[in-house]
Amino acid sequence: MKRYEQVAQAISERIEQSYYQAGERLPSIRDVSKTFEVSISTAQEAYRLLEDQGLAEPRPKSGYYVLNRQKAPQQLPDVSRPVQRPLEVSQWEEVLNLLCANTSQDIVQLGRAIPDLEAPTLKPLSRIMSDLNRYAQSSILSYEHLRGSDKLRLQIARLMVDSGCRLHPDDIITTTGCQEALSVSLRAISQPGDIIAVDSPSFYGSMQAIKAHGLKALEIPTHPETGISLEALQLALEQWPIKAIQITPTCNNPLGYTMPVEHKQRLLEITAPYDLPIIEDDIYGDLAYHAPRPPSIKSFDNEGRVLLCSSFSKTLAPGLRVGWVAPGRYVNQVIHMKYVVTASTATLPQVAIAEFIAQGGYERHIRKMRTQYQQSRDAMIGWIEKYFPQGTRISYPQGGFLLWVELPVEIDTVMLNERTMALGVCIAPGVLFSASGKYRHCMRLNFTDRPSERNERAVQIVGEEIRKMTQELTKVTV
Amino acid sequence: MKRYEQVAQAISERIEQSYYQAGERLPSIRDVSKTFEVSISTAQEAYRLLEDQGLAEPRPKSGYYVLNRQKAPQQLPDVSRPVQRPLEVSQWEEVLNLLCANTSQDIVQLGRAIPDLEAPTLKPLSRIMSDLNRYAQSSILSYEHLRGSDKLRLQIARLMVDSGCRLHPDDIITTTGCQEALSVSLRAISQPGDIIAVDSPSFYGSMQAIKAHGLKALEIPTHPETGISLEALQLALEQWPIKAIQITPTCNNPLGYTMPVEHKQRLLEITAPYDLPIIEDDIYGDLAYHAPRPPSIKSFDNEGRVLLCSSFSKTLAPGLRVGWVAPGRYVNQVIHMKYVVTASTATLPQVAIAEFIAQGGYERHIRKMRTQYQQSRDAMIGWIEKYFPQGTRISYPQGGFLLWVELPVEIDTVMLNERTMALGVCIAPGVLFSASGKYRHCMRLNFTDRPSERNERAVQIVGEEIRKMTQELTKVTV
Repeated sequence: MKRYEQVAQAISERIEQSYYQAGERLPSIRDVSKTFEVSISTAQEAYRLLEDQGLAEPRPKSGYYVLNRQKAPQQLPDVSRPVQRPLEVSQWEEVLNLLCANTSQDIVQLGRAIPDLEAPTLKPLSRIMSDLNRYAQSSILSYEHLRGSDKLRLQIARLMVDSGCRLHPDDIITTTGCQEALSVSLRAISQPGDIIAVDSPSFYGSMQAIKAHGLKALEIPTHPETGISLEALQLALEQWPIKAIQITPTCNNPLGYTMPVEHKQRLLEITAPYDLPIIEDDIYGDLAYHAPRPPSIKSFDNEGRVLLCSSFSKTLAPGLRVGWVAPGRYVNQVIHMKYVVTASTATLPQVAIAEFIAQGGYERHIRKMRTQYQQSRDAMIGWIEKYFPQGTRISYPQGGFLLWVELPVEIDTVMLNERTMALGVCIAPGVLFSASGKYRHCMRLNFTDRPSERNERAVQIVGEEIRKMTQELTKVTV
Repeated sequence: MKRYEQVAQAISERIEQSYYQAGERLPSIRDVSKTFEVSISTAQEAYRLLEDQGLAEPRPKSGYYVLNRQKAPQQLPDVSRPVQRPLEVSQWEEVLNLLCANTSQDIVQLGRAIPDLEAPTLKPLSRIMSDLNRYAQSSILSYEHLRGSDKLRLQIARLMVDSGCRLHPDDIITTTGCQEALSVSLRAISQPGDIIAVDSPSFYGSMQAIKAHGLKALEIPTHPETGISLEALQLALEQWPIKAIQITPTCNNPLGYTMPVEHKQRLLEITAPYDLPIIEDDIYGDLAYHAPRPPSIKSFDNEGRVLLCSSFSKTLAPGLRVGWVAPGRYVNQVIHMKYVVTASTATLPQVAIAEFIAQGGYERHIRKMRTQYQQSRDAMIGWIEKYFPQGTRISYPQGGFLLWVELPVEIDTVMLNERTMALGVCIAPGVLFSASGKYRHCMRLNFTDRPSERNERAVQIVGEEIRKMTQELTKVTV
């Protein structure tokens, strides 16, 4: 163990023992340097590690503070119990409603998964794009290579080392957001009519891709802390001719869990006899609250079976439309699909992001966002526990900015959303996340914004409407 | 006829009668104003019309000149005779070779269809993008609406009036380049195994989309001046269960023809009994050498059967990846496909292009490019006639920057390309443009650059290699 790690461990033990309380100021870097007889830079290094571990946060001109860690919610959602047979995906109307919902500033957007775009740590990226337009006109107006910008693919390969992957830039193809990565991956490994096993609840974008490509979804029971049930998956594999698996195992959308490492490894083992492709959506992976971030399934894959899909839409900004896929052995099929779908990915944002990463801007931004989202999660859980009725269950995200709420079964969240929209709050109804329209009493909420009175008020409004709906239902029954 | 039109006609008659010779300076605006007793602005208007008609060109600080018009090539290519049955598309390897060809500055790129990106009239667009990054960070980093930027769709609806279309902005969906427009259109109206009738030779991007979606292509004989043979199409419709038609009727890629108006109307008539969707690729339409540009098939469609696909990739720049589709009655299917494929189109280039059009930059740029490409076409035809062997046939483009060359049948252009690449010149072999690998003795050349010694030398190199190949083949035969 290095010196700074020893120092960090000593401080973290005192936090665990409540020697330093949540929200309290930690000793200054100078004090730490004196107490532990280490250099200033070692003390700084120690605090940076504590920050990465989600234990401390820096406040400008004031030093480090113990992060205000919420205890896990008292009641987690149940293990999901989806329909146990392959289904055609429905729910497009509901997804369309969410996608086309009023996006005016007057509505508090707790529905869509859009990261914080006002973060000061994004400014350098905009500056780079501005400069590229001024000084590199003709090169950024031209087509990029079919596989994507060389510079960007190099930087992505470097980033992916954090998730345990050792890839060559040529193992990576850039895409128009993660949606294209998921869509071309699905098409590359399946034919219409094939069955795709998915976690459940599952991201509606990949579910709709399954629908559009004429595939069927087999929803597998999923645990709110450990992800897809490996036992249920194994049974399903024996029972159905499953063609591929599509999951979001790290900082899951919508539940927020991260599948334990041994589950990720075991998933590869139990699918090996079937030589099954696994589409791994890793889009929130870099936003795990603890650094180093959890390893991807891809990092354990020696057979080239995992198609890892990701993007900068959640870590940086969705409007850039830059994602990537590392398709393993399916690279040729994916390149063909990528070509016919969009020919190539836009040039400017690729070159700009590569430069932003190279300058260290990406790492600075992610470090900042991790802390911010973790704090917002805790605030959000606090508000839900305060304003929502008894019996509400909340997931406990380990990264990203999304959580899942399970309400009493009689509450229909599609109706709830109609009511809260009229009051200026948008949520994502649970039915969007199921092939068969399950999770009607659930919803996904995002917590990208810094905690604010406005957002607390929005959660309060949702809570009040739930109570009203319950009362109305009781009256009807009486 | 308006006064300025009368003046323009009078001048054009004198040009036709060779009263003013090609390359000669035309009377100054002041002279025209005096001679015809019209205002200065009417005289200017008259010259602008002549410019649009491809008869005159402005030279900075010097006035207007008679455009150096090349006569049509002596020998046009034959009407194509493709295989008369539905085929699975092959040729992906050959397309990939072109897409991944060396793009270094040392190679003269006569192969890929990339417009002139050094044009000074593009500078304002880069400036707009630069400013947007500086002053509108968070709005351009966010997702655009699923259908695309409102501002841009309004401007596209306005541009499309020139092609005879009266559309509401909500009839338009922006896409990641024309390739996405073509791809989602195809998928929206077909199922794997369906037969799609195409013009032949045909753009390889849409052919590969047919391949990737598990469809079959039925290549219809095509005339080098009037496009797809309506008689052959009618026979094919009687013989095969054709699901849709996919063509590029205006400034065709690769031949450059524009289908006559009455053919466009007739195409709608003969397909009406079958209620057939028509995917109209209009990507080069605005680059027709004569203004106003030719009407699209879409402009005559009262049944919502035409899915018009286009983009700014050829008129402005391909690296922006902004295209659009006006899908008529298939709008719901297209929106679903668009969502699953890329979720939304990048925000910045959409907003920037909308602003560029609104400021008049698009019109200025197109006006400039039309003249430039027409001049380059004439130079290119001149060089080919000078350096290529007897028996070479050349198409006579009416817009855009691509032409088609038919060589003596014994010349294999895939081999030719390998030889010219070694000498620093890239061409597009003809096999790319056929489902079945026909057109092996043909090639497509682009002429985006202003005529230069370097480009003339490149054409000369291609011509010399053709001669050498002919000699080598003769020797073998002897």
